[in-house]
Amino acid sequence: MVKSREQEHPEEALGWAAIDASGLLCPFKFSRRATGDKDVKFRVLFCGICHSDLHSVRNDWGFSAYPLVPGHEIVGEVVEVGSQVGKFKVGDKVGVGCLVGSCAFCDCCAIYHDGTMTYGGYSNMMVVDEHFAIKFPQNMPLDAGAPLLCAGITVYSPIKFFGLDRPGDHLGVVGLGGLGHVAVKFAKAMGVKVTVISSSPGKREEALQRLGADAFLVSSDTDQVQAAMGTMDGIIDTVSAVHPILPLIGLLKHNGKLVLVGAPNQPLELPIFPLLSVRKIVAGSCIGGLKETQEMIDFAAKHNITADIEVIPIDYLNTAMDRLAKGDVKYRFVIDIGNTLKEA
Amino acid sequence: MVKSREQEHPEEALGWAAIDASGLLCPFKFSRRATGDKDVKFRVLFCGICHSDLHSVRNDWGFSAYPLVPGHEIVGEVVEVGSQVGKFKVGDKVGVGCLVGSCAFCDCCAIYHDGTMTYGGYSNMMVVDEHFAIKFPQNMPLDAGAPLLCAGITVYSPIKFFGLDRPGDHLGVVGLGGLGHVAVKFAKAMGVKVTVISSSPGKREEALQRLGADAFLVSSDTDQVQAAMGTMDGIIDTVSAVHPILPLIGLLKHNGKLVLVGAPNQPLELPIFPLLSVRKIVAGSCIGGLKETQEMIDFAAKHNITADIEVIPIDYLNTAMDRLAKGDVKYRFVIDIGNTLKEA
Repeated sequence: MVKSREQEHPEEALGWAAIDASGLLCPFKFSRRATGDKDVKFRVLFCGICHSDLHSVRNDWGFSAYPLVPGHEIVGEVVEVGSQVGKFKVGDKVGVGCLVGSCAFCDCCAIYHDGTMTYGGYSNMMVVDEHFAIKFPQNMPLDAGAPLLCAGITVYSPIKFFGLDRPGDHLGVVGLGGLGHVAVKFAKAMGVKVTVISSSPGKREEALQRLGADAFLVSSDTDQVQAAMGTMDGIIDTVSAVHPILPLIGLLKHNGKLVLVGAPNQPLELPIFPLLSVRKIVAGSCIGGLKETQEMIDFAAKHNITADIEVIPIDYLNTAMDRLAKGDVKYRFVIDIGNTLKEA
Repeated sequence: MVKSREQEHPEEALGWAAIDASGLLCPFKFSRRATGDKDVKFRVLFCGICHSDLHSVRNDWGFSAYPLVPGHEIVGEVVEVGSQVGKFKVGDKVGVGCLVGSCAFCDCCAIYHDGTMTYGGYSNMMVVDEHFAIKFPQNMPLDAGAPLLCAGITVYSPIKFFGLDRPGDHLGVVGLGGLGHVAVKFAKAMGVKVTVISSSPGKREEALQRLGADAFLVSSDTDQVQAAMGTMDGIIDTVSAVHPILPLIGLLKHNGKLVLVGAPNQPLELPIFPLLSVRKIVAGSCIGGLKETQEMIDFAAKHNITADIEVIPIDYLNTAMDRLAKGDVKYRFVIDIGNTLKEA
């Protein structure tokens, strides 16, 4: 059940879809910061539903802090800019992904973090430092582009970082879901040979015909897996359930790289010999920086890459979450916030 | 008990220390190939005892083929060269490590493999293609240099390959044994800051005073480990027993690299979240190529790096193996083959 936020601060008049520990959407009061000098305030138009939203809502990882507002694949239109903002003007389309602040002190970052709890894009208005807002390309659909801000950068960044984008390289993509299907699109646009590895034989035609993968491997078919041993330069593994990685390590060439971007909540079994013998790597990767996110969305716009989505009204959210938990979506739900989440 | 080889081919008159499935040295008959056009025949002078010799002898990894002759840290003197050999002449000192042949066809290599079983350096004469023989530097002691052919290259190669050799970088070395103690020496010679991580508090003085490490961390001391979190660019983990790697991943900076060079015979637990969040890598690495092995030994000679050894006669071998299994050696046994393994 989704309701508008109660008017604790009537002058803001926002609608929210907050989630408490019950795992269901419910109304919730909290305050939001005013638009600062470097901030951009924008009306949310679309927000994708990431599988990690579901993990957060259900506290699968054990560190959810309720009440929470999910949503980190956010596209909107600027309605106000602070006095020091130079990158955006009112009316611009902006994207906001997973990053909305940083500590400014560590090796990783150079921007402030004010210590307050952040809330996500299942809401109709947001305020963010302009540094964390992405310029949304003109030709990029707002709805089908939204998931690129998490799903897109999560696969684009490791493909680039680990040097798996060289034309002619052979990339495996494990799991054909929200992340996997955009991984195929990005890799193909880079000129890479792509093999989709899936536990579902029924996804073969989808992978080969519609998404343009070069090959399809059923992970439970030992003959197929055996035949492909030692052929891949890298693998992007999007599976967020506990699963065996020994066969995946076997699929790699020497010096090959298995990059985990899904987040199982239990440790996986790491066999050592297969790693040692030909110097293979198992790595984790998580989204990407702001500069690279802008690069990713510009690349996507140039190559007409979007996510395959099912647009839903905000009232459908709890149902969508249940369907997502069952893997019943091709491939990403996107909430039409602009038309369905009314201001209080 | 060590005996000379029986004279199946009296014209060769070799002594061997072969090992059958009992795990004890015993006499054994087998034939050896003649010196071919590209081969170098050399009298073995010293051979290091690697922990993997012990694993092989005891079939810890499940694929030992008996009878076997261990030994892959071999230093000797050339006694005969084939007609096409250009790299060595009679009297030269040579080193032979783990590699004595390759397939010539795969991406990794470009030399022949004749399909026969290879035997190791616990013998007094060997024949090897010159491609696989290392020129032993003049100023490198033959006995203390021998272990560099396995222990040395096993740590040198990943330090270089993973870019952990930049002056000022901070490298962790887990385990102060045969591999660990030379890792400290190499890293210090490269200008890297080194922290030894050990389960034995008693090794502190040894690590800091004698080997020149910059810091020492007791792995079971959670306060010490906590204080060092996020400070290391890379870790070379030499431990060959099953052990937790979560704390080691925590010690890494973002983009840090945990490189496993030990070979536990059971899978380790791989926690995914700590890898994902700041794009860390777990990798395996195993020895190195011939070119890099030559580079390593030349580097060692230039920087006066040798292994710390205990020289033993061949008759002491079974006792040495038992001591090695208990970790009772600082840090590498080397067999004085030349003086103690008599020809039949």
